Amino acid sequence: MAKVFDAAEVAKHNTRESCWVVLYGKVYDVTDFLSSHPGGAKIILKLAGKDATEEYDPIHPPGILEDELKPEQCIGTVDAATLPKEEPPLQDNKPSQGPPPMENLLNLDEIEEVATKQVNKKAWAYYWSASDDKFSKQFNNEVYRSILLRPRVFRDCERCDLTSTVLGHKLGMPIYVAPAAMARLGHPDGEAGIAEACRGFGAMQIISNNASMTPEQIVKDASPDQVFGWQLYAQIDRKKSEAMLARINKLNAIKFIVLTLDAPVPGKREDDERNSMEGAAAPVPSGIKEAEKSDTPDVSQASGGVGRSLFAGTDPTLTWRETLPWLAKHTDLPIVLKGLQTHEDAYLASLHTPQVKGIILSNHGGRALDSAPPAVHTLLEIRKYCPEVFDKLEVYVDGGIRRGTDIVKALCLGAKAVGIGRAALWGLGAGGVDGVRRTLQILSDESKTCMRLLGVETVDGLGPEYINTRMAEQQIFDGPSRLDSLRRDFRAKL
Amino acid sequence: MAKVFDAAEVAKHNTRESCWVVLYGKVYDVTDFLSSHPGGAKIILKLAGKDATEEYDPIHPPGILEDELKPEQCIGTVDAATLPKEEPPLQDNKPSQGPPPMENLLNLDEIEEVATKQVNKKAWAYYWSASDDKFSKQFNNEVYRSILLRPRVFRDCERCDLTSTVLGHKLGMPIYVAPAAMARLGHPDGEAGIAEACRGFGAMQIISNNASMTPEQIVKDASPDQVFGWQLYAQIDRKKSEAMLARINKLNAIKFIVLTLDAPVPGKREDDERNSMEGAAAPVPSGIKEAEKSDTPDVSQASGGVGRSLFAGTDPTLTWRETLPWLAKHTDLPIVLKGLQTHEDAYLASLHTPQVKGIILSNHGGRALDSAPPAVHTLLEIRKYCPEVFDKLEVYVDGGIRRGTDIVKALCLGAKAVGIGRAALWGLGAGGVDGVRRTLQILSDESKTCMRLLGVETVDGLGPEYINTRMAEQQIFDGPSRLDSLRRDFRAKL
Amino acid sequence: MAKVFDAAEVAKHNTRESCWVVLYGKVYDVTDFLSSHPGGAKIILKLAGKDATEEYDPIHPPGILEDELKPEQCIGTVDAATLPKEEPPLQDNKPSQGPPPMENLLNLDEIEEVATKQVNKKAWAYYWSASDDKFSKQFNNEVYRSILLRPRVFRDCERCDLTSTVLGHKLGMPIYVAPAAMARLGHPDGEAGIAEACRGFGAMQIISNNASMTPEQIVKDASPDQVFGWQLYAQIDRKKSEAMLARINKLNAIKFIVLTLDAPVPGKREDDERNSMEGAAAPVPSGIKEAEKSDTPDVSQASGGVGRSLFAGTDPTLTWRETLPWLAKHTDLPIVLKGLQTHEDAYLASLHTPQVKGIILSNHGGRALDSAPPAVHTLLEIRKYCPEVFDKLEVYVDGGIRRGTDIVKALCLGAKAVGIGRAALWGLGAGGVDGVRRTLQILSDESKTCMRLLGVETVDGLGPEYINTRMAEQQIFDGPSRLDSLRRDFRAKL
Amino acid sequence: MAKVFDAAEVAKHNTRESCWVVLYGKVYDVTDFLSSHPGGAKIILKLAGKDATEEYDPIHPPGILEDELKPEQCIGTVDAATLPKEEPPLQDNKPSQGPPPMENLLNLDEIEEVATKQVNKKAWAYYWSASDDKFSKQFNNEVYRSILLRPRVFRDCERCDLTSTVLGHKLGMPIYVAPAAMARLGHPDGEAGIAEACRGFGAMQIISNNASMTPEQIVKDASPDQVFGWQLYAQIDRKKSEAMLARINKLNAIKFIVLTLDAPVPGKREDDERNSMEGAAAPVPSGIKEAEKSDTPDVSQASGGVGRSLFAGTDPTLTWRETLPWLAKHTDLPIVLKGLQTHEDAYLASLHTPQVKGIILSNHGGRALDSAPPAVHTLLEIRKYCPEVFDKLEVYVDGGIRRGTDIVKALCLGAKAVGIGRAALWGLGAGGVDGVRRTLQILSDESKTCMRLLGVETVDGLGPEYINTRMAEQQIFDGPSRLDSLRRDFRAKL
Repeated sequence: MAKVFDAAEVAKHNTRESCWVVLYGKVYDVTDFLSSHPGGAKIILKLAGKDATEEYDPIHPPGILEDELKPEQCIGTVDAATLPKEEPPLQDNKPSQGPPPMENLLNLDEIEEVATKQVNKKAWAYYWSASDDKFSKQFNNEVYRSILLRPRVFRDCERCDLTSTVLGHKLGMPIYVAPAAMARLGHPDGEAGIAEACRGFGAMQIISNNASMTPEQIVKDASPDQVFGWQLYAQIDRKKSEAMLARINKLNAIKFIVLTLDAPVPGKREDDERNSMEGAAAPVPSGIKEAEKSDTPDVSQASGGVGRSLFAGTDPTLTWRETLPWLAKHTDLPIVLKGLQTHEDAYLASLHTPQVKGIILSNHGGRALDSAPPAVHTLLEIRKYCPEVFDKLEVYVDGGIRRGTDIVKALCLGAKAVGIGRAALWGLGAGGVDGVRRTLQILSDESKTCMRLLGVETVDGLGPEYINTRMAEQQIFDGPSRLDSLRRDFRAKL
Repeated sequence: MAKVFDAAEVAKHNTRESCWVVLYGKVYDVTDFLSSHPGGAKIILKLAGKDATEEYDPIHPPGILEDELKPEQCIGTVDAATLPKEEPPLQDNKPSQGPPPMENLLNLDEIEEVATKQVNKKAWAYYWSASDDKFSKQFNNEVYRSILLRPRVFRDCERCDLTSTVLGHKLGMPIYVAPAAMARLGHPDGEAGIAEACRGFGAMQIISNNASMTPEQIVKDASPDQVFGWQLYAQIDRKKSEAMLARINKLNAIKFIVLTLDAPVPGKREDDERNSMEGAAAPVPSGIKEAEKSDTPDVSQASGGVGRSLFAGTDPTLTWRETLPWLAKHTDLPIVLKGLQTHEDAYLASLHTPQVKGIILSNHGGRALDSAPPAVHTLLEIRKYCPEVFDKLEVYVDGGIRRGTDIVKALCLGAKAVGIGRAALWGLGAGGVDGVRRTLQILSDESKTCMRLLGVETVDGLGPEYINTRMAEQQIFDGPSRLDSLRRDFRAKL
Repeated sequence: MAKVFDAAEVAKHNTRESCWVVLYGKVYDVTDFLSSHPGGAKIILKLAGKDATEEYDPIHPPGILEDELKPEQCIGTVDAATLPKEEPPLQDNKPSQGPPPMENLLNLDEIEEVATKQVNKKAWAYYWSASDDKFSKQFNNEVYRSILLRPRVFRDCERCDLTSTVLGHKLGMPIYVAPAAMARLGHPDGEAGIAEACRGFGAMQIISNNASMTPEQIVKDASPDQVFGWQLYAQIDRKKSEAMLARINKLNAIKFIVLTLDAPVPGKREDDERNSMEGAAAPVPSGIKEAEKSDTPDVSQASGGVGRSLFAGTDPTLTWRETLPWLAKHTDLPIVLKGLQTHEDAYLASLHTPQVKGIILSNHGGRALDSAPPAVHTLLEIRKYCPEVFDKLEVYVDGGIRRGTDIVKALCLGAKAVGIGRAALWGLGAGGVDGVRRTLQILSDESKTCMRLLGVETVDGLGPEYINTRMAEQQIFDGPSRLDSLRRDFRAKL
Repeated sequence: MAKVFDAAEVAKHNTRESCWVVLYGKVYDVTDFLSSHPGGAKIILKLAGKDATEEYDPIHPPGILEDELKPEQCIGTVDAATLPKEEPPLQDNKPSQGPPPMENLLNLDEIEEVATKQVNKKAWAYYWSASDDKFSKQFNNEVYRSILLRPRVFRDCERCDLTSTVLGHKLGMPIYVAPAAMARLGHPDGEAGIAEACRGFGAMQIISNNASMTPEQIVKDASPDQVFGWQLYAQIDRKKSEAMLARINKLNAIKFIVLTLDAPVPGKREDDERNSMEGAAAPVPSGIKEAEKSDTPDVSQASGGVGRSLFAGTDPTLTWRETLPWLAKHTDLPIVLKGLQTHEDAYLASLHTPQVKGIILSNHGGRALDSAPPAVHTLLEIRKYCPEVFDKLEVYVDGGIRRGTDIVKALCLGAKAVGIGRAALWGLGAGGVDGVRRTLQILSDESKTCMRLLGVETVDGLGPEYINTRMAEQQIFDGPSRLDSLRRDFRAKL
């Protein structure tokens, strides 16, 4: 381990047959690890023979390295003086000057604009991307534009109270940061920075299963009444998930588990894929050619973007019958199901109380299935087909939020809390902790202004009489109700 | 008071601790006044140590200075020769050449285009701005585009009579200038210039509570049959409002009081805010930072644009029960409620006759709550849920009028009069009195052409059979009627 | 009369007090005529002291000069050598090279594009203009785009027969040239050129009341079976109209009279107005200033474009009761009413058989009232409220036709013939007779292709089962039927 | 035949009176053939006196030359050295460098973009063109955008099976290449290249009647279980069609006959026509002039694009009564009817079982009748008016497919297979066999991703509960059902 390598020596080991990489000054022989890397061999081969630290660091929480590599794979250290001088890659659009003062940014669009210039191309591509033609991503926001507000007059609107509760926990505002992955890709403050910003506003945070920091790091400086959820992508190797759950169970700040259901397999995020291809330094065998050889063509084997590589190991076989009981064995925390997109599934969830305590209506920010409905549609479907769901479960929504009016509209339709995903990451990318603060500040101010102008003082006071959803209602599902048969099937299985 | 200061001496007093400003050649020590300025300290600090006359004058009516400052705060005069030569500020886009002849402008779009070039950036930002994404501002106009006209043939249309009545007073045309503030910002002719233009056409004018001239100045040259309303923003300090009402009660030209309800707190007008930030000469503490310190983050404390500063002192606690009786004590003039946006509130107003004589359906030109419905929606809602309102109250509308056809469509739907806000200010900005005249002339001509081509001779002859509102009707609120419970509650409180 | 003037001498007489103009080489003193010119004094004053021939000729049919001026007003001739060399005016965009071969133009858009380059600016402005925002002009075409066709298969479509009848007269195709005025403005072939093109296709032509050629000139070379209508704008001075009717009654080629009802007063055609202002060579007193002086502000007095000047003398007082009996006294030709835009008026027309034999559903090409419905809406209204109208009257439509599919859609909805207005003028402007021929050829070919692909052999075989009007039907008037009261009123007046 | 001509000598024979062309080094005197060429004389006259090989080859399958010309028409060979050096025509936009690696292309839009640069202008115009304003072409795709997906959660989606059956034959994926003509125009791999790509994916191919290769060539390397259909345009000269059917009957790989019904006459494809005009090297008499002379103006006689020339000889008189029995006489293969666009015709087809086994809902890629409905509309119509059709016939659709989600949506609506036309040709043009492979690969991957995210494992598992067609349903035909009378007529004819 004491051996010191010259960068030139390391550089020779850049093949599948002998693959070395430098991480944090140490040299690792990862030849044997190539085939078991959750993100695939290609992503490592791109960096074979080089210092991979800058690529590796922002997307791996501490501890992963030690988990995955055996001590003997570290074969020495690199002579730092021999490493090539870091030059900003050509495709990097990071500006030399920093962002403007956060308080000059007036809305979430402006924050996104600043972040787009501040973060590097890989982060931008990962955050901005959505599946296929990004239709659902765009529709997520447009559907809010189609809902009108109905302000009442002669209402005392001096006071305005955004406080709310989630699963019995008090929030300063009915807003949560959705479990978006890879925060350090955009800013070194990372997920802990998001937590710090949330603390000041009483906003909730759901920690991504693919966070670039450990849960322990993220909740370390939480205030006593700060509320966190933890997102679970159940792994094929259930032991890994069980080990994580054991760690989560020990963290008091984490109040519930969010089981992600809207992305059992990755969507096709072309911007992310494209960036990955452009960034390829060496000619990597492309997915399609391999596929042909193996006679099982499947793009999921291809060299993918950041998004796709995160799915490695995710279990696509979850079911009501198997997964919920398994989860009950490994945690006593309340369960929230994320990614419901039909009233049928919302109804099924309501049959699974008391273990299931809440549901998140979400199309994964338009990143899973393009053409999937926005959460507003699912809210309207539930109101139409099975409004009793709102009495049995807490319902949260995310996707497409850009204004306080959007938040208020979702609350009027029955949501208990409203999530922001990309918006929080753009805030982080624009200005770190201060950027997320500015994002929350703007949403808080806009929401309050909206409630005051509606003539409503508290979140509980909001309701459907304050909105006109006529246009959206003409777009939602209108098929026959199948709830009777769903209930019958459910009972038969008991 | 006889002391003469050098500009350089004045310039030293540019801090919160010692703040002098020059106004109309006199030097004022406003250090003590900073905390009580209705528009906030920051707006003064921007001008500390300087000649503030050019900023101050167009947005303050005469008399305000004397009201607010004590004689001893005037500490001398400035030596004019020592003041820096007035240089047009960089952000000012005022052209050196004047506007084209008003009679060459064929429609309201062209007038706005000319005004945009003629007025300075602050005026433009204040007039043009609307809240958030300006969706309601845009929709205000688009909804008129979606209504079709149904012209009848074989009607004698030689004569066309635009005369109308409002609260028993005869108008030359069913058009009023809505209570838009700060007219002198756009042109020195100011609100009195608007009054002069209205006089020639028999148009009505509602004087803004925040006019840049006094009501007395504005009505000074009115013709005997000219009709004015006066807009009231009830102040937290009710004494101020009562004093104003006492002044208004003495002015015969003012026939009614318009109580504004659609903007109890200011909307978020980003263009106005943005202009304010850009205009900041000195580093002013930003709103968000202060907010954090005080732990009560609220953008309403931030350094705001012209629009926000006007709201200082406005009472957000008005209610049916308290405000109307208070008003009755201080004026015998008929009351018109402005800013109703739902059929429910229109219905409630109709229960408050005879004190309430009219209502103005308005979303404040899209400047209050973005996503609020256009007045056309509220007209359609009233027709659908409680058409009897039209028999009990006079209904006026404003927002989005750009063509005579828009006016005729609103009249067909039951409006007694139709207001123009920005359009009058753009007219003023484009050419002073002549510009407002041209605006009214165009609307008068277009309205007459429209009525003739519909085959209708008088305003009273217009009705819903002359329009096709099918498309707009598919967008309006469709929820259950709550009028029974509103009526019950109202009676219970009697 | 033998006197020969120098151009310089003529040029001195360029005022209201002494106004001379040169026409076809002769010098006229028109000072006394200024006040009685149907198109207004201003349009003459613009040309005072100059050779007006080029302006005068293309918009006045022969004979008008002699009608309007007394022999003694011709005071001599001009010495041609002294006239300034004709220079193409700066605003003229006429290209030096001619148009491409007509057979290379594939559709009506391409023909319009070529014509736009070929005709001078005045002609372009007059043809292209429509009222206000040109919303109705645009909607006229868009509504056809919203109607889908329903092609049937396994139909023998070898033969396709476009022949049709109108009022018992056989047409080669169910297409007519609508009564568009001022054809010689676009091309010297003028209305006679349109007639020549129609002859080859069996298309019908309705001669404009404001044609730039006399009816006698236009029908001179008609084939024996060629069908013409003549459009009447009833004049305030009915003697003029009666004299014209007497002339028309003598022309065998003219089979019916079209009484125009959709433009009793002119719409506001801003492009036309704007061109007129720009073309003003001398400072002409503007409309608005005069209006103020006279205290009866009315834009209709203003210096107007070609379109407005044509309306001079038109009677806006026509009614069912007075006008139809008057017309019956002066002609035995069948009457067709043009410009009906509601089912109510179509129904009323159907009560006035047998004198009224047909109706033209038209919004005057969007040139009268902006926001007026397209003819397709009126067709759908009639089908919905009073389909019996189709049995009592022949129904024609115009406005927005750009494709053969548009024609077939209108025929499917019940139209007996379909008119093109601007399209014929663009054809003429692009290539004279050949351009109109190409226009008709394209529409004929496209209509046949459409019918063949629908599987329909004859015009009579078309019907509503071949189209899907679902989208348009969601836009049409949906108010209560008032036909019972219309019928009652009609009978009461008998 | 041994005679060797100089190119200069050949060049003299470039008129209707004496017309020679060089093909594959031989000189043909085609003067007598001019009037009988199926594609018209003009297309040959353009090449008179020249080497026509490059124009001729990619659009004529081998054997045609021998079929059409008699041996004595070959009058010698050309001295190759005397032929002008081939220079790339100016209008050709073919880039000097080749396409990027196919595996870098992420979606069908990118493939089309590459193909647009790779193929020559004639191929581009023929592939890209559609009729009139290309409204139907655009709507074909947009209607898929308006359908939302309804993903279900907690479904095991590890396995995903795209296999399907068509007429009892197993497919690897429910996708077929529609019978698009002239594949060698885009790439020398031609239709055989498409077959090769389909083989690897188990995709079906319908061979165009106008393929640029013989059926025998195309199926030559087919795998034993590969499925082909053959498209028939019945010819006026039925003997020709019967001869082709006899050839087809012998090819085991071809499993059914597709009788094309949606284009009995050609649509108006302006891009194709325009390219043809631009490409004209010599002044060819234009269609309209001839038409005038012959007094039977018909654009179908005009010099047309590639698309139009293919229709020469096609029989437009097909009917249910005559054509199906004729076909039964000449083949025992199952019949599939292509181009049904109404539920009425789908219903009629269902009455013609068992001879008719399937129908293809298609508007010919928007290339026949513009404004014709997309196949999705017809699917929805059938579901609404006569869902029993799905039980009696297999239903396929094509037009507008750009994404795997489009395919899945069509399958949910009841389609058994989904066709791609232009997409396959763009794939071929972009990269030959590899380009078509990439196209199929992408669609396969996207379809699987979509099914997994919907929670559906097999094609049979898809159904209407997985989609929300609310928006499209508001656009489809809503007229009265005429099925009873259709059935009655059908029975009466038995």
